[in-house]
This record gives sequence, structure tokens and C-alpha cells, in this order.
Amino acid sequence: MTHQIATQNTDIDVADKPLDAASAASAKPASGAEATGTAASGTAAVRIEHDSLGAKQVPADVYWGVHTQRAIENFAVSGIPVSSHPELIRAYALIKQACARANAELGGITAEQLELIDQACSEMYAGDFDDQFPVDVLQGGAGTSTNMNVNEVIANRALEIGGYQRGTYTPVHPNDTVNKSQSTNDTYPAACRLALVFALRPVIRSARALALSFQRLARRSSTMVKLGRTQLQDAVPMTFGQEFGAFGTVLDDDVAKLASQIDSLCVLNLGGTAIGTGICADARFRSLVVSKLSYVSGLTIREANDPIAATSDMGDFVDLSSQLKRLAVHLGKIANDIRLLASGPQAGLAEIHIPARQAGSSIMPGKVNPVIPECVNQSVFTIFGMDATVTAAAEGGQLQLNAFEPVTVHMLLTGMGVLAHAMDTLRVNCVDGIKPNERLGRERAERSASIATSLNGYLGYEGACHLAKRALREGRTVKDVALEEGNVRAEVLDDVLDPMNLTRAHIGGGR
Amino acid sequence: MTHQIATQNTDIDVADKPLDAASAASAKPASGAEATGTAASGTAAVRIEHDSLGAKQVPADVYWGVHTQRAIENFAVSGIPVSSHPELIRAYALIKQACARANAELGGITAEQLELIDQACSEMYAGDFDDQFPVDVLQGGAGTSTNMNVNEVIANRALEIGGYQRGTYTPVHPNDTVNKSQSTNDTYPAACRLALVFALRPVIRSARALALSFQRLARRSSTMVKLGRTQLQDAVPMTFGQEFGAFGTVLDDDVAKLASQIDSLCVLNLGGTAIGTGICADARFRSLVVSKLSYVSGLTIREANDPIAATSDMGDFVDLSSQLKRLAVHLGKIANDIRLLASGPQAGLAEIHIPARQAGSSIMPGKVNPVIPECVNQSVFTIFGMDATVTAAAEGGQLQLNAFEPVTVHMLLTGMGVLAHAMDTLRVNCVDGIKPNERLGRERAERSASIATSLNGYLGYEGACHLAKRALREGRTVKDVALEEGNVRAEVLDDVLDPMNLTRAHIGGGR
Amino acid sequence: MTHQIATQNTDIDVADKPLDAASAASAKPASGAEATGTAASGTAAVRIEHDSLGAKQVPADVYWGVHTQRAIENFAVSGIPVSSHPELIRAYALIKQACARANAELGGITAEQLELIDQACSEMYAGDFDDQFPVDVLQGGAGTSTNMNVNEVIANRALEIGGYQRGTYTPVHPNDTVNKSQSTNDTYPAACRLALVFALRPVIRSARALALSFQRLARRSSTMVKLGRTQLQDAVPMTFGQEFGAFGTVLDDDVAKLASQIDSLCVLNLGGTAIGTGICADARFRSLVVSKLSYVSGLTIREANDPIAATSDMGDFVDLSSQLKRLAVHLGKIANDIRLLASGPQAGLAEIHIPARQAGSSIMPGKVNPVIPECVNQSVFTIFGMDATVTAAAEGGQLQLNAFEPVTVHMLLTGMGVLAHAMDTLRVNCVDGIKPNERLGRERAERSASIATSLNGYLGYEGACHLAKRALREGRTVKDVALEEGNVRAEVLDDVLDPMNLTRAHIGGGR
Amino acid sequence: MTHQIATQNTDIDVADKPLDAASAASAKPASGAEATGTAASGTAAVRIEHDSLGAKQVPADVYWGVHTQRAIENFAVSGIPVSSHPELIRAYALIKQACARANAELGGITAEQLELIDQACSEMYAGDFDDQFPVDVLQGGAGTSTNMNVNEVIANRALEIGGYQRGTYTPVHPNDTVNKSQSTNDTYPAACRLALVFALRPVIRSARALALSFQRLARRSSTMVKLGRTQLQDAVPMTFGQEFGAFGTVLDDDVAKLASQIDSLCVLNLGGTAIGTGICADARFRSLVVSKLSYVSGLTIREANDPIAATSDMGDFVDLSSQLKRLAVHLGKIANDIRLLASGPQAGLAEIHIPARQAGSSIMPGKVNPVIPECVNQSVFTIFGMDATVTAAAEGGQLQLNAFEPVTVHMLLTGMGVLAHAMDTLRVNCVDGIKPNERLGRERAERSASIATSLNGYLGYEGACHLAKRALREGRTVKDVALEEGNVRAEVLDDVLDPMNLTRAHIGGGR
Repeated sequence: MTHQIATQNTDIDVADKPLDAASAASAKPASGAEATGTAASGTAAVRIEHDSLGAKQVPADVYWGVHTQRAIENFAVSGIPVSSHPELIRAYALIKQACARANAELGGITAEQLELIDQACSEMYAGDFDDQFPVDVLQGGAGTSTNMNVNEVIANRALEIGGYQRGTYTPVHPNDTVNKSQSTNDTYPAACRLALVFALRPVIRSARALALSFQRLARRSSTMVKLGRTQLQDAVPMTFGQEFGAFGTVLDDDVAKLASQIDSLCVLNLGGTAIGTGICADARFRSLVVSKLSYVSGLTIREANDPIAATSDMGDFVDLSSQLKRLAVHLGKIANDIRLLASGPQAGLAEIHIPARQAGSSIMPGKVNPVIPECVNQSVFTIFGMDATVTAAAEGGQLQLNAFEPVTVHMLLTGMGVLAHAMDTLRVNCVDGIKPNERLGRERAERSASIATSLNGYLGYEGACHLAKRALREGRTVKDVALEEGNVRAEVLDDVLDPMNLTRAHIGGGR
Repeated sequence: MTHQIATQNTDIDVADKPLDAASAASAKPASGAEATGTAASGTAAVRIEHDSLGAKQVPADVYWGVHTQRAIENFAVSGIPVSSHPELIRAYALIKQACARANAELGGITAEQLELIDQACSEMYAGDFDDQFPVDVLQGGAGTSTNMNVNEVIANRALEIGGYQRGTYTPVHPNDTVNKSQSTNDTYPAACRLALVFALRPVIRSARALALSFQRLARRSSTMVKLGRTQLQDAVPMTFGQEFGAFGTVLDDDVAKLASQIDSLCVLNLGGTAIGTGICADARFRSLVVSKLSYVSGLTIREANDPIAATSDMGDFVDLSSQLKRLAVHLGKIANDIRLLASGPQAGLAEIHIPARQAGSSIMPGKVNPVIPECVNQSVFTIFGMDATVTAAAEGGQLQLNAFEPVTVHMLLTGMGVLAHAMDTLRVNCVDGIKPNERLGRERAERSASIATSLNGYLGYEGACHLAKRALREGRTVKDVALEEGNVRAEVLDDVLDPMNLTRAHIGGGR
Repeated sequence: MTHQIATQNTDIDVADKPLDAASAASAKPASGAEATGTAASGTAAVRIEHDSLGAKQVPADVYWGVHTQRAIENFAVSGIPVSSHPELIRAYALIKQACARANAELGGITAEQLELIDQACSEMYAGDFDDQFPVDVLQGGAGTSTNMNVNEVIANRALEIGGYQRGTYTPVHPNDTVNKSQSTNDTYPAACRLALVFALRPVIRSARALALSFQRLARRSSTMVKLGRTQLQDAVPMTFGQEFGAFGTVLDDDVAKLASQIDSLCVLNLGGTAIGTGICADARFRSLVVSKLSYVSGLTIREANDPIAATSDMGDFVDLSSQLKRLAVHLGKIANDIRLLASGPQAGLAEIHIPARQAGSSIMPGKVNPVIPECVNQSVFTIFGMDATVTAAAEGGQLQLNAFEPVTVHMLLTGMGVLAHAMDTLRVNCVDGIKPNERLGRERAERSASIATSLNGYLGYEGACHLAKRALREGRTVKDVALEEGNVRAEVLDDVLDPMNLTRAHIGGGR
Repeated sequence: MTHQIATQNTDIDVADKPLDAASAASAKPASGAEATGTAASGTAAVRIEHDSLGAKQVPADVYWGVHTQRAIENFAVSGIPVSSHPELIRAYALIKQACARANAELGGITAEQLELIDQACSEMYAGDFDDQFPVDVLQGGAGTSTNMNVNEVIANRALEIGGYQRGTYTPVHPNDTVNKSQSTNDTYPAACRLALVFALRPVIRSARALALSFQRLARRSSTMVKLGRTQLQDAVPMTFGQEFGAFGTVLDDDVAKLASQIDSLCVLNLGGTAIGTGICADARFRSLVVSKLSYVSGLTIREANDPIAATSDMGDFVDLSSQLKRLAVHLGKIANDIRLLASGPQAGLAEIHIPARQAGSSIMPGKVNPVIPECVNQSVFTIFGMDATVTAAAEGGQLQLNAFEPVTVHMLLTGMGVLAHAMDTLRVNCVDGIKPNERLGRERAERSASIATSLNGYLGYEGACHLAKRALREGRTVKDVALEEGNVRAEVLDDVLDPMNLTRAHIGGGR
């Protein structure tokens, strides 16, 4: 975090002078501007663009224009550019392409304009301009800067393809041609939703792979008995397989929940233009662009029933955040359990062994720590933070638009990346190498006083209580004490107190 | 919050003496104990019960027993008893009834035992013992105290019905008879889930009613034009109907999301007993009890696929909390918008009028404040807190059980009550009385420079920009300036700049 | 949560009819109104009061008036009345008393008015009217309803003392006399701050007592050695005393931090009246009332430097919430550690024994669970929720007032109650009875391979590593292996590997 | 977020093979490794290092060693390297330098070792190795990887300075020499705390500058009257100066609170080594290193009273997070108020004008949005998320160490960067250019019915109420109606109803 507040030193609009001379003097270029530092310093290396605020220098060799240039300077806050989210850039490329095709079909743009824009969008989708989105992810303006950045990059690349000069904006204009029949109010939410779909896929893939790993581990340990624990106190026997299998089960549930988000995210307010009324768009545009976008994206896109509501509503972002948090809660619990079961080596539970990934201490020789689950726990904590941010941003929206979509989508995209990678490292570097301590597991299950539970049916709860407490007090096994007391026959005890029998007790072999 | 830490002064178990004499001396009875204060002070008014920790006095006239009595003293923390959640008591009554019926059918309890328990459960379901659940909602023990409280109340009432003495526990024993084939590990999560279903229904009803109110309001104002706003700045025209209709739409979405939670909540680990292995339960019990419970509850109950996972998993609680938070985000946004649109009376937006509910100030005469939406906002903030608590509790679970279900379910039940009531007061005391300021709405829409947007197609974005800025600068209407500049014909301007036309612009009459 | 949305059936103001007839018909009286149900149904048992919205029936036997009556019906949301926070009632009594004395001294009220009000305030401070504050804690109106409720109760009681009729408001009027030189904008924040000071004291007392308990425990176990653990893996030796002592240390830090909040909370905007400008108050009132309040409260009250800022600022509430959260974080960590160290009895760490407080399971005989720390953990989670609510409420304030102080203060007062009680039960029912397992602790420390750490200085980190790993692999002690390898002399090993020596290693005897 | 899970393809340790061949095959190098991609691919460009897990290739041209190399591969989760926090690198340089000097003075290292390490630390402090810390900020291991990365970089650079080969670790060894008398348990928390102090300074500077800007603005507008608003409804008059001044006041409070954190952060557990017992360190080391560190850092460093507690305690991190959140709450409120007051231009409050920073819309011509405050709001929301993450991480610590300090400190450092930059852009690009609408402000204040408040003293609350309601109803001024009613003399009305008089009413001229 060493970047600096933007300078206004490339600003030649006298109407909007630097407000704080001292500050401007000491300021350095923002991150985005740094990439073009040399360009900006020479006289030949800039072009002049205009907007409603006046004229402004833009580096000659970039595809972005005046709007983007102002935004770079306005929002030097997180130091993280939109470029860090290629999913969003890809999504916007598809949307602009679909819009251009719909516009052309309705006669709104010419065949030449379509051809140039279409080609530019394809290149953008391929990642050719991933470095051309320098605006900070915490930008104000409800995404307008990103939409205009996209419009400018596509316009300038389209011009270039057609043999025209960048910055001339004829025959392809950022607003009138690329943004035709569109507003930030509809394209930005739409692009964000597609980007979230793109980013969700690896999360689902990673969760499924992790679930499979646990299920493999469960199968390998399905006959290894151990003692279950509730409230950290010894409970009744179970198998390692049941324990690991449960991890797989909750992750499978998460996969299903996450996958169900995709449908909702593919319902778009595209065609609603400003505030959802569809102003400036042909009446047929809305349904046409949805079919074009379905085609280019390969997704099943649908129109929002109420585009006014869809323009400002953050409900689906809150939902996605919640589902990611649910997954995070599960991962946190799993990481906690793994760390607990692997505690030791001598003075802990030591019930499982996890792979040693690195030396654990700079001072304690031979120490090995559960660094991978710890990394997962920390990833989980960032998701809790993400959800708090998303909630606050969602609640803060006012009237016909939520101005805080940029931070919302940044957080969600970042969070999904963290979760996917955390699950991958957990799977590859930990879970796939877990080895249950079969001998210790069985020993604890057999010697536990808590297996007196299975004698409730023979002795009543209070009779079983007496047995369990006596076994504990005298340091003997329940079977031993029960034999001595003689209220249950030996053959019955053999059967009823066998830990493995208890683990599958009456639930049936179906599982 | 005036209650006190529990005294141990009814405790006659010498093995577990008061640990801090000074503290015990100054302590007063906890809230639960207070109800029975006079009973406890006399010698005749108590009965002695025993458990594995020893003997203990219980007030003679209560239905609860020794376990509950200890718990009253252990958990005097929030001062809120389980009795404050009748949904949970009702749900537990159904579960114990279903279990008794299944046990009887499998020969685990006698016909007499069934008859007595069945009758006691029916009375409990009817609310006859709502004051018999004095244990704090923040109880430790993962719900064991609530389950044992239920077992004790049912056992003692069953004994009483059969003409037996309370506290004798023959022929109906809390553990061996009422709790037969059960554990807290399965009945508590199951009861909690049913209780949440019961509490969810009024939330859904209130949300639907509120959505309907907004939709009625939308119909009444579907032809009243106003200016839309994005980022608090003037945007393009819309109708009041579109604005209120969008509130109805997002609430309808919430209704659908909330309703979909019911199915998940009806999947139970009942029959899993301790840690989900089904120990102590007949192999046929699990499917049988589910059918009995479906019958007595009228709900479609299903068995969890993986009872081990289901025993400790909090995923569905996290989901429910998330959906309530989503609803809260919407309500918060709606309350914010109403307060903003109703701001004034002279120096605010004053675009709608909301009913005056009370004098607004102790000092400023005639002031009237938006007290109902403010009450809603505050309710919403408590839901954000609820969600934070639920998340932390869910993540904190360890190994085969989550010990923090009591706080989770307390928070969810409390939150649902607050939300339902907040929506009711918002509907009755505010929304149903909202009156749009039709004249002001139309005036603002007509005079706004931002309707130049509709000239983009005629003048290009930059041309329309010029027009809008000139209109603003000169304090004239866009139409006026456009007529003077003469680039668009007057008839076109009449049509294109008519605010009402703009509000439905090209979206079609389907909405 | 069984209360209902308020009916308007006591409302006789035709100008403000029930808005939704169907709803009103099905509604039942709110909690506050229920207390006066019979009064409201008869004709003789009500009095008629008026305010700027019209006339309204008020139960004849209550001290509150028309403002309160409307508020009862408007805010039936949480079902928790202001009466549940006696600290707030006591604080308001002091403030009204101080204001009356200041007003009298400045000639604003008569000697008779002062005498009557003064007496009424004394009674209110003594708790005589604790049941006269029925308005919901989640009230809208920024506290106006609570201030007016206070004004009405004091006015009516003052009238009664003077032999006048309740509701006549001559010679004592709620607004003109009791509220003279005041606004809700200044008295409500001021009363809230005093109430927080009152509620903070028991928190500090409980935290100090808990710290002392840990320190006593630390002294008792200062020579009992055990193995320290980092990241749940065996680390180097320490004493039980050091472990428990650290709990005392962090709690002592919390005590200091919390105590430092009191000074800030005693800085008041009293005298600022509406929005802090002091309108309607004599220029001398502000400093005079502060000295009167210091006298009656026994606290050192100071004037806010900037009453405009102080009127809307929530910074100190955020701070208090944060400090409570810090304490909660510590308590959560302590409860977690206790549960972990007490895990077992056979298959856990079993390093400490905590008192058995109740039977742990409805099915597993003899099971005892750490119910007290679990209760603490859940209390801690509610504090995290409290902080989320307070943060949202604080951020949501607008312009010259934060309308969300009621929920903020309700949450803080509730949270402090929970924390104080949670610490008390933790101390009395758990910490004071903790017994370290001295034998096991020493055994683990002596046999741990990790004490090879102390040989770094003799063998280098890599040499010590070799020793530790060999000891672990061969199941021998480090000393045994070291003796065999012969690189360090036996006498040195005796000294360097003695666990007790390691625990105080080089830190000096001061601790 | 395009990075990938680490490959194990540079790992030649057969004992710890890739666990998931399919996954490893498809994986790409992590971000850290990418920087050295070409080095790793050739045979000559690597060196082989060993640790307790075996041998491993390290790129020949990097300063880090085997521990760092393993960590790069283990923690490819966020894609953000420790290098992104130069404050942490600088802090660690000072600590290692101070330790080396203390060790040398105590005879623990040679003069040559000191000279080499000292020089390497100076270079590291100067930023020469900022690219040599490639490990992910979400690393597991409680900071061990960062400490070892530091140890390795210093060791290798020291060797190089001395003319030795990198990787030979003689005469300077990462553990035995650079880390001498230290552990991650003490140096990591210590370095984090210093880093936080370094990062806090610009936050304080930016907050102070912003407060000054508001105070300048307040002075410029101290005689411009306007209407205050409570609960978004018209309240009594105030000046723009009072409104802006209050923003300055709360920020000044934040500056004081933040500055007070520095003292706490400078209390270090340095010398406590593993778990705080000081094992492996000379008894004199602890106080000596503190004095050395005070010297090299220029800060007043103090020893923690209880190094055991200090090793695991996160209280001060929670505090810092809380204070940053308090600042964020204030900034959020300020940004909200600015956006509200600047709403318009025609259909909003329009009470202030803020500088236009960029075109506001891709479709609505001439629209200008409050993009700078919106950027601030979003920054604020990230701080709420930061605090949620820090809280969860702090609560999650167990026993003698909190393993989640890395995510905590990463979040705090990131959050401080965002806050400082957000305040800078708010100041330079918005606040310094704010222009109050003096005419509109005065007009609203004069015409407001709410100034009837000042007649309470003449007419009583109910009389003033009547006046205010009549004025509103008849669309006349209060003075006009009052003159007509004739109860107050005209001269009095002139004085009492003058808005400017009301703004300073009776509070005295001091403010």
C-alpha cells in the first residue's frame, strides 16, 4: 500500500484547477498513471481528449480515454485496479458485443461499426487489454468509470482496427456507438453478475474436488473405529470414515447451494438503461440483447421481470455472499477439527497425522505445525469480513441505484478467489495426505466409559450411569465392571460393547 | 437486566459446595427461581430429586426436575428464559409425542406409558406449561437442559395424569421413557428446526402483506410521474408507481426465498440419537418417527441422508439467518428511501407524505418525524447483529456437535419476531397511508435538465450534454432551450420530452 | 416473542383513523397496553389527553400521558419495554432533577414547581415508577418517546404530590416545566451516557473479580509445570500458574480500558437543547446544569466542547462497544482454552479438571460437559452481534442527529448485563473450582521432544532438530538420546532439560 | 485474482511427494515463484538447500532460502505477497538489527557476524529487498514463514557482503545467528506492532489534514445561516460553519484516539522467545534489546509486564481495529451528509456544491455525481469488513499463541492504507472545494415553521405549536402569523426569530 493520491498535473482544464496546491505539488502519480509515466512526461506522447468538464491529456499509447484518465486520479484508494478482475473484463466484452449485435439488427449502428466493435470485443474477451483497466476497484460513480473505460477501450481499438486514429471517436464513439441503448445502470450490474458466474465456477469445482477427497478418505477409513466427541468430551464410538464423510456431505450441500446461484445471477436488467425505464432504447432491444448475450456467453440469460427493481436491488449479491459465508463456515469448522485431531505429537489428541509441509518454528527444533488448515482458517475470516462489507454496501443503496456495487463485486470476486485457492491447498497439501491413527482410535473407543450408553436398554439410564462412573473412577473398562456386577450376560456385552457395532448401530448399511 | 447470578442455596449436594462463599451470600435467586421463591423457602414446599451429581431440592409445585433446577442456577446470564420462545416448546411437544408413538409401536414403551405421555404432550403443545421452561436461553450444554426440562415436565405431568406422584419417575422416567430412543443430539436440533418453521410463517405472512401494500400503492400511483434519482442526483423520469412497485417486487422475492427454507428445515436427524449413529435406537425407529412426526405436525418431515453430518451441521441455520438478513437489507433500504422522500416539510424532498403517528419533538413545536421507518431501521440493525452472532456460533462448533445451537436458535427466533412486527407496523402505520405529492413530482420531472437524455438519439450524447448544461445554467427547461436552438422539431420535442412517455419508454406495456 | 402489533382501538382522533381496517380488527393490544387492558375497556377508567395530533384515551391509573400512549402503539416490535433498563430510568431522573434545580435558580420555574418535580425525580430515581416506561426499546423518534414518557411521569407524579389531578398539567407541564431548557436532542444522549456508566460498573467489578480468581489460581499453581502449546502443537514447558496468570493479565488490561471509558461518557451536550445550539435555554443554563448534575449524580460531569458535534456523534458508543468486544474476545479465548484443557475425560487433553455442574447428556450416562464455559462462549457471540448492530446504527446517522441511539443504547445495556453475569457464573461455577492435573502436566513436560529447544545453544538449531526428531521417532526422552550421543555433559543436561528451569528461563524472578 | 495453487515441481524431497498428481500437473507457479520462473527452469540457476523436511531447490538469484520456498508453494491463496507491506519489512529490519546488537553485546555473536547482519539490516530497512518477501499474506504458521524469510534474506545478504556464498549459512546462519535469542513468537508480534505504528502515522496525518480542511471551511462559512435537520425533518437554524465544524471536531477526536494507540503498540514481548518464557535467551537480553530497538527505531519501546500473556494476546489489535472503525463510522457519516446536502441539482437539497470530478453518466448528459464521497463510503465498508475479520481472528486464538496474526495484521495494514488515501482524496478532491449555497440556506432558515421553537418561552409549547402548524398550513412565515395573532410584540419577534441569532442562541460567543 505505497501508492499515492492522484496528482492533477495532467489536467489542463482551467475550470477545474487543483484545489490544494501544496497537496498537488507533493503528490505522485497513482498506480494506473504510473504505467504510463514516461508517456505522460513527454509532449509528443499524449493526446488531448475532451468531455463535459473540459480538455485533458491522456497518454498516447493507451486505449482508454478522458473519462478513465479522470477516474484514475480520483480514486487512488486501494491501489487495486479493475484489471485484477479479468472475469469482469471478459463479462463486459460479451455484453458490449451482444449489445452491438442487437443494435445493428435494429438499425441503430452501421455494419462497419458492428464489425469494428465486434472484433474489438473478441480481442478484449481474449484478454488482450487486461492491462487497460487501471481504475481503482473502490471507485465512486456506481461503475460508470468502468463502463466508460470499457467503452473507451473498445472504441479506440475499434477505430484502430478500422484504420482510424485513437481519440477521434468517429465513426465509433464511446457513448453514442459502443454504449448505444445502454447505461451504466444496466450494463454494469449485468457485467458484474456474469463475472460472478465466471468466478463461481472454480469455487464450485474446488469444493467438489475437496468433497471428493474427503469421501475417498472416508472410504479408506470406513472400518477404522474411534471415539466421537461432543462438546469436546468423550461421546460414543464412530468411524473415521463417518467423521471424514460428514465433511464431504456438508461440502456437497454447499456445491448444490452455490450452483443454484447461477440461475439467479443470469437474470439481467440489460435493456433497462437508466434506472430501468429503458429510456433511449428501442422497445425490441431488451429481449433481443438477451438472446444475443445468451448466444455469445453460452449461458441461459433471462430478462428481469421488474427492471426498475433489478436496477437497484442487491439481493442476489447478498445471497451469493451468504452462500460463500456458509461454505466458509464449513471450511472453518473442518480446518478447526483437523487441527484439533492432529494436535500433538505427544501432548495432543494425535488422532490423525497430516503431511508436514514446512518446518514449524524458527527456534523449536523439529516442530511441525498445521500450517495449511491455519491458512484456511484465515481465508475463512476474510470471507466473514467480505460478508460484512457486502451487507453494509447493500443496505446503503438509495433510491433508484445502489452506488456501492463496485466494492460489493470487488469483495465477492476477491473472496471467491481466496476460497477456491484455500480449498485447493487444503485438498492437495493436507487432506489427501491425512492418515488416521487407527490403533489409537480403536484403543480409545474400547476403553471409553461412555460406551456404557449402549447398556441403557439393559440397565436403565441410571444403572448405566453407575457403571460408567465406576469404570472411570477405578480406571477399568465398562465391560470389566459390567462382568463383575453380573447384570448383563457376557455374550450380550461382547456384542453390545463392540465399538464397531456401535458405530453403525441400527442406522442400516445404506450409508 | 436486573437479575442476578444464581445462588447455590438450594443445593444440598455436599460434593459440590458453593465455591465462593462471599459471592453466594450476596447472590439472589435467578429469574427462573424467583417464580418459585416462596415455594423454595418453606420446608414442605420442596421435593428432593437425585441425579448423578447428587440430591437437590426442587420446588414442589413445578413440573421440572433436578436437571432443570441445576440449569436455572448455572445459566443466569441473559435473564431471558426458554419460555419466551413458545414455538420451541410447541415443537418439542410434537417431537416427544411422535417419539412416544414410535416407541410404543416398536414395543419400547407400554400402552399406559404412551397414553400418559401422549396426553402430557398434547397439553404442552396447547401451551399449558409455557411457564415451566425457566432455563436461560444462553444455556451451555448444547440444549441438554432444554431437552431434560422437556423430559421432566412431560414425565411429571404424565405421572400426575396417571395418578402418580411427581418426582417418582415410575412408570414414566424422563430419560428411560420420555427420552427413549433419543438424545439431545437429535431431538434438540430437530425441535429447533420445527420451531424455526413455526416462527418463519408469520414473517412470510407479514412480508407478503407488506409487498401487497406496496403493490396497491403502486397501482394507485401508476400514472403519477416524478423524477428518478441515481446517486442522489437527478436522473430520468419514472412514476411513483414504478418506485413503490419495486419495493413490492423485492419483498416478493424475499417471500419466495424464505418459503424455500421450510423444506430444508424439515429434514431432520431424528433417530440419530448420540452423534448421529443411532445408538440405543431400534433400527426401524428412524423412519417410523419421521412418519409419526409428519402426522402430528402436518409438515412433510424427511430423514437427513447423513445423520452424522446433520448432527453437527449449522448450514441451514446460517442460510436462514442469511435470508432474514437479505430481507432486512431490503427493509432497511425501503425505510431509508421513505425517510428521504418524506423529508421536509419545507427544506427536504417532500415528495411523499407519510402519516403523522406522534408529536416529533419535546421542544420543537409541530415537528413530526418518520418514527415508524426509524423503528424499522433499528430492527434491521438488530438483524445484522443476529447474523454476526449466528455466524460466529456456527463457525465455533467442534467435532461431532455444535454446542452453540442454543444462542443460534434464540437469535433466529428473536430476529424473526422483530422482523414480523417491524413489517406489520411499517405497513399499518406508514405504507398504507403514504400519499405521493403528485404535483411536485410532475413539476420536478418536467423541469429537470436530465430529460435531455431522451435527445441522445437526435443530438448525440455531446449535443444533449450541451443542451442540459445550458438549461441548468440559464434556469430554463430543456424544451425551451431546444426549441431555441432548433435542431429538433417542436412536435418531436413534445413527444420525446413528455415525462410520462419517458417513464414507460420502450419497455412495453407488460409491466 | 408473542406480542402483537398495536391496535388503534383507544384512538379517538378522527383525523388519524386506522389505516388498514382488516389489520386493526385482528390486532391485539401491545405489551405496554396489555397492562392497562381492563382500564382501557371501561369508560370510567380512562382519561382523555390531547397533543398536536388530537385527543386520545390514556388509562386513568398510569402516570404516563398521550405521547407515551401513542408510542406504545407505534413501536410494538421487540416486546422489550424501556422498563427493562432501570439504569436509563435512574439516569433520566437525575437529569430532570438537575435541570429543574438549574431552571429554578435561573428563575425559569417557581419554587413550588421545583419542589414537586424534585420530589417526583427522587421517587423515580428510587425505582418507584420502573413499571411506567412501557415503550418498546426499538422505538423510532431518536428517544423522544422516552424523554416524553419521563416528562409525563414526572409531571403527573408532581401534580399528584401537589394535590392536583393527573393529566391537568397545571402547574406542572411535561414540555413547558419538566422539559424546560431541554430537548430530547440533549437530555436523551446525556441520560444514555449516564445509564451506560451505571451499567459499566458491574461489568468492571465482575471483570476484576474474575481476574483475581485467575490470579489466585495462578499463585496456587505457580510451581506446577506443564507443556505449553503453540498452534495446538507441543511447544516448550511453562507452569499452570503462567497460563492462568495470563488470563488474569488480559482481564486486568480490560478493566483499565473499560474504566477509562467513564470519563468520556461523562462529557455531555446537556444544555445544547435542539441540535446543540442551546435554543430556548438561558445562556447560563449549560454550565449550571452540569454542576447540578455532578452534585446529584456524584459523578464528574463536563460540558462537551462542541455541542453541535456532541449532539449527533456516536463515537463514544462505538468505543464502548469496542471495549466490550475486546473483553468478549478475551473471554471467548479463555472459555475456549478451558474447554480444550478440560477435554476428556479419557480421550482429551484432560490437563485441568473443572467442576461438574450438571449431568451432561440425556442419553450418555456419566457424561459431564463444560456447560459454564459454553454459556460464556455464547454470551461472547451475542456481544459480536451487539457490536455489529452498534456499528450499523452509528454509521446510519444523518445530519444533526443520530435517530438510532435507542437501539444502540439498548444493545449496549443488554450486552453489559450479559457480560457481567457471564463473568460471574464463569468465576463462581468454574474458575474457582479448577484443579490442574499436576502429575500429567509434569509428565508431558518431561517427556516432550520439544524441550530439545533448550539445547540450541549447545548443538545449534540443526543439531537440536536431529535430537528432537530422533527422540520422537524412537519414543525416548531427549535427555536419554542426548546422553547416548554424548555431545553435552550429563550435568548440563540435568540442568538445561529440567522443565521447571525452562519455565522461568532467564526472565527473572520478578514474575 | 488469477494466480494458481502452487506446484510442487521444484520439490525434490522424495519423502513429501506431490499428493495429487493430476492437480500438480495442471498447476502453475504461484505469484512469488513467477518472479523467478526462468531461474527455476534452468539447471544452473538453482541452489539446493536443506531443512528438517529434506532438500529443496531454491532459485539461485534470490536471497530467500528453503523455508521461504516451501511457504511460497503452501500458501498461494490471496495472491498478495508480504512484499505489499513494506512497513512490516522495515519493522523486521529494525528488530533483527536491534537483536544482533544485543546479542553481540552479550557475546552471543561475533563482531564479524554483527557487522554483516547490521549492514544487511540497514539495506533491508532502506527497501533494497522489498521484492524478496514473496510469501502470501494469508500464510499459516503464525508468522514463522515471514520470520524465516527475513532470517534467510538477512543471512544470505550478510554472507554476500562478507564475500561468502549464498546458501552456505556460515558464518551467518538464519536460525542460529540471525534469529539468535529470538522466536517467531516474539519477533513476529513485535514487528507487526512496529509496522502498525509506521502505517498509523499517515492515517493520523491524513485525518488531521481533513479535520483542518473542515475547520477552514467552517471559518469561511461561520456567518452563513441554514436550517438544521434532525431525523431528516426540518429543525432549528444553525450555520454552515457549525455543521462543517462538527465534522472537524469528530475527526480531531479520532486523531487523539488513534495517536494514543501508539504507546500501547510499542509495548513488546521481545525477548520472550518461545511462548514468552524467554527460553534460549540470556537473562539480560530482554531489557537490552528493548533499549537497542528504541535507539534504532526512534520510538519509546517498553517491555510487556507479562510476556506469556503478551505472546498470545490480540487485545491491542482489536483496539486498533476498533479505533479505525470509529474513524470509518465518522467518515461514512460525513460522506453520507455531503452526498445528501449536495443532492440535486434541481430535485435535491442542493445546499452545498461540491467540485465536479468527472462526467457522471454514460447516458445521462450533463449529470455529475458525488463520486468522491461514494469512494469514501466504499472504503468505509471495507473497514467494517476488516474489523469483522480481525475480531474473528482474535477470538480464534488458542492456548499460548494466536496463529491468525498474519491475516489480522494484513487486514489492519491494508485498512490503514485505504483510510489514509480515502481521506486524502476526500480532502483534495471534494472538501477543499465545497461551496455552501448561502442564499438558499438563509431562505430556508427564515421561512421555516420550526423557528417557532424560539417562541416556546413566550407562548408555551402548545401555543408555539399552534403557530407553527398554522404557518405550515397557510404557507406563511411564523413571523407573519405571529404578528397577526399579536401575542408577542414585533420588536421581540424581530430579535427572537432572526435565524442568525438562533444559531448562536445563548451558547456564548466562544464557539
